[in-house]
Amino acid sequence: MLEELRREAFEANRRLPEHGLVYLNFGNASVLDRGAGVLAIKPSGVAYDQLDPARMVLVDLEGALVEGALRPSSDTPAHVRLYQGFAAAGGIVHTHSKFATAFAQAGREIPCHGTTHADYFEGPVPVTRPMTEAEINGDYERETGNVIIERFADSDPLALPGVLVHGHGPFTWGESGAKAVEAAVALELVAELAFHTRAINTGAAPIGPVLHAKHFNRKHGKDAYYGQR
Amino acid sequence: MLEELRREAFEANRRLPEHGLVYLNFGNASVLDRGAGVLAIKPSGVAYDQLDPARMVLVDLEGALVEGALRPSSDTPAHVRLYQGFAAAGGIVHTHSKFATAFAQAGREIPCHGTTHADYFEGPVPVTRPMTEAEINGDYERETGNVIIERFADSDPLALPGVLVHGHGPFTWGESGAKAVEAAVALELVAELAFHTRAINTGAAPIGPVLHAKHFNRKHGKDAYYGQR
Amino acid sequence: MLEELRREAFEANRRLPEHGLVYLNFGNASVLDRGAGVLAIKPSGVAYDQLDPARMVLVDLEGALVEGALRPSSDTPAHVRLYQGFAAAGGIVHTHSKFATAFAQAGREIPCHGTTHADYFEGPVPVTRPMTEAEINGDYERETGNVIIERFADSDPLALPGVLVHGHGPFTWGESGAKAVEAAVALELVAELAFHTRAINTGAAPIGPVLHAKHFNRKHGKDAYYGQR
Amino acid sequence: MLEELRREAFEANRRLPEHGLVYLNFGNASVLDRGAGVLAIKPSGVAYDQLDPARMVLVDLEGALVEGALRPSSDTPAHVRLYQGFAAAGGIVHTHSKFATAFAQAGREIPCHGTTHADYFEGPVPVTRPMTEAEINGDYERETGNVIIERFADSDPLALPGVLVHGHGPFTWGESGAKAVEAAVALELVAELAFHTRAINTGAAPIGPVLHAKHFNRKHGKDAYYGQR
Repeated sequence: MLEELRREAFEANRRLPEHGLVYLNFGNASVLDRGAGVLAIKPSGVAYDQLDPARMVLVDLEGALVEGALRPSSDTPAHVRLYQGFAAAGGIVHTHSKFATAFAQAGREIPCHGTTHADYFEGPVPVTRPMTEAEINGDYERETGNVIIERFADSDPLALPGVLVHGHGPFTWGESGAKAVEAAVALELVAELAFHTRAINTGAAPIGPVLHAKHFNRKHGKDAYYGQR
Repeated sequence: MLEELRREAFEANRRLPEHGLVYLNFGNASVLDRGAGVLAIKPSGVAYDQLDPARMVLVDLEGALVEGALRPSSDTPAHVRLYQGFAAAGGIVHTHSKFATAFAQAGREIPCHGTTHADYFEGPVPVTRPMTEAEINGDYERETGNVIIERFADSDPLALPGVLVHGHGPFTWGESGAKAVEAAVALELVAELAFHTRAINTGAAPIGPVLHAKHFNRKHGKDAYYGQR
Repeated sequence: MLEELRREAFEANRRLPEHGLVYLNFGNASVLDRGAGVLAIKPSGVAYDQLDPARMVLVDLEGALVEGALRPSSDTPAHVRLYQGFAAAGGIVHTHSKFATAFAQAGREIPCHGTTHADYFEGPVPVTRPMTEAEINGDYERETGNVIIERFADSDPLALPGVLVHGHGPFTWGESGAKAVEAAVALELVAELAFHTRAINTGAAPIGPVLHAKHFNRKHGKDAYYGQR
Repeated sequence: MLEELRREAFEANRRLPEHGLVYLNFGNASVLDRGAGVLAIKPSGVAYDQLDPARMVLVDLEGALVEGALRPSSDTPAHVRLYQGFAAAGGIVHTHSKFATAFAQAGREIPCHGTTHADYFEGPVPVTRPMTEAEINGDYERETGNVIIERFADSDPLALPGVLVHGHGPFTWGESGAKAVEAAVALELVAELAFHTRAINTGAAPIGPVLHAKHFNRKHGKDAYYGQR
């Protein structure tokens, strides 16, 4: 079982540079086996082309090392906190992808300007509040998870599988590592589309709620008819 | 014959990621055999690198399944409607390509700022009107085809082989699947050129009708002299 | 000799998609053997991946076919006119590269905002005047060459090896096909740099004449010291 | 030893086109053996795909040729001057990467809008003052090094491993050639992020000093905990 978990985490990390979502050693992906209470995550500061399943680091849901010769990602406490707070999450991805990070740095949510966005996110992609000095100087990475959870007090994380951490960059999640990667690709795409949409028409309005719900539900609703059965 | 139709549809779909026009599972291409009254289209929600001719789905011109183990693209009723409305169309492509989608999301047509545009489109690339709630909640994908046809009441579809669906993205078409793909590439290119043209000079004027007609006709007019005979 | 000329023209054309300067069948390159009075040019409307030296078309300096089973590029009369007008030109390239074409469509010259530009062009990259209806409806491609030559009445073409044709796109040239390709790459790069420079600082000034001359001359002046001997 | 130095310099140069930081023959990298007082640098005007360790040129810390059949980069005196002025530098990279060069051409420093920037640079990436006519017409490349050193009078070069030369482009450095390349990649990335951040929100503020210090120090401070030990 843990071999499969390591492999899944490796696959999720390997796909980040393939999709052009990470540069240098930025970013990381993890996958959780909630039954075992163990997650596998990228080792800290290791180049993406040096990864393999054996180098994934196993950590429990308190953040304690379970197995691994390498140190886990420095962002591990944020992943742990999100798995604690989002009961349905089975995979988490953090990137510094270009347009999503630009919105995070600008402190602006990503409005839903089209069906590409509505196909993945039931509302605008939110941005967290800036962190306080106490949070930054305290248990910084865990507090990063906390401000995300705070922002989702009134949202369903699986219906809005991504967030922009203010001044930092995006986190996405899903029921699996593969779904979290897919959300990261979708988030970067809708960020880029929104960027250019506003540049063409600064007064462009978000799509209406009826079209938004139609697209979200044809993929994710109880009567979804997109894809194969 | 249907094998050839499947192969053509597969080729058209395969070229979309090669040309950088689609991401994730967005987009789809179909090819029609008008004599047989059958079209071949991408299966719904299947990754582009998992396609082959045998997985294309055959559907008739009422949208009924003819042959295929997989469900056809959820956008199939839009394709069917367009083949009904545009008698000369033999191939249709739908993408979420970046700049064309940004114009669609901005609700703005693409003006003709240069000969690249005039070589493929005899006028601005139009945008459809926003769909009504009744249309969205009704037979949505077929109504998507209807608003396109409504927009082309006074246009020749083969002389203007593309459109932006408001808040969604581009559809293109042509006499064959290959021509529809070519129009999709051209549409994305002219969208990107127009975007940057307006950013350089917000007051840039479209090219005049004489230059526009010259370029369109040297490729598509009765005395066309571009290309080989 | 003509085999070598065909090979050089093929090499120049082949490099255009490699450098990302052309899309679909847009663009073309030619190489001149001035002694023989013959140029080799891309065949019209043939895909770049279908080219080989044998398919290059040979034309004389009046534009008459010398040898070739295919029709030459529809832009051949523009190439011929430029070889007539620019005695030092041995290769010519025409592309629809993205940022250079955007400046051409915007009707704006490319100002020299940095040493990248100064390394290749001794002044701003100029834009031609819009063509008249008579020119467009007359011998259009030859007139395209004429408006370029008109624009260079007071310039040395080898010191300013490129131009933007108004509402169309760039032409570049050089002593050889390889030099013309290099100028096309440089022109697209300086166009992109200028675009982003103005977006960062709308009031950005061109670099001063002393720095401009320093960079141009260290590569191209009589005391040039860049490169190998 | 010199073989290893040549190999390191070759590796640093080879990575520049791999990372998309250079075009044509622009740019160059050098690596210093401070004990031997010798640096290895790219030969002038040689294409990146024609490089190998044997073609690197060895120069001493006065700029005199030590070994090499080819002429060293024309920018060698700038590299030499920086090694003289920055005692901790073991590698230097110069590129014309797109967004960093656009900021250099715009004469604008790169503000720190997010943690990507803070992970590499302890403050804004500065821009040098424009050079005087005397400097340009004098020992130009050495003076280029001088204006960089002048700009760093109050900065620690290893904590701010990059600069924008006004109207020209970026230089970066580090303890090794590999570190200088990494800084060049990071500089281009933060330039692109800053560009888009300002386009989304022209009033976007830099991140606060507490968050900036946190990220810089978790990678570079005395209690750094990023990466492996």
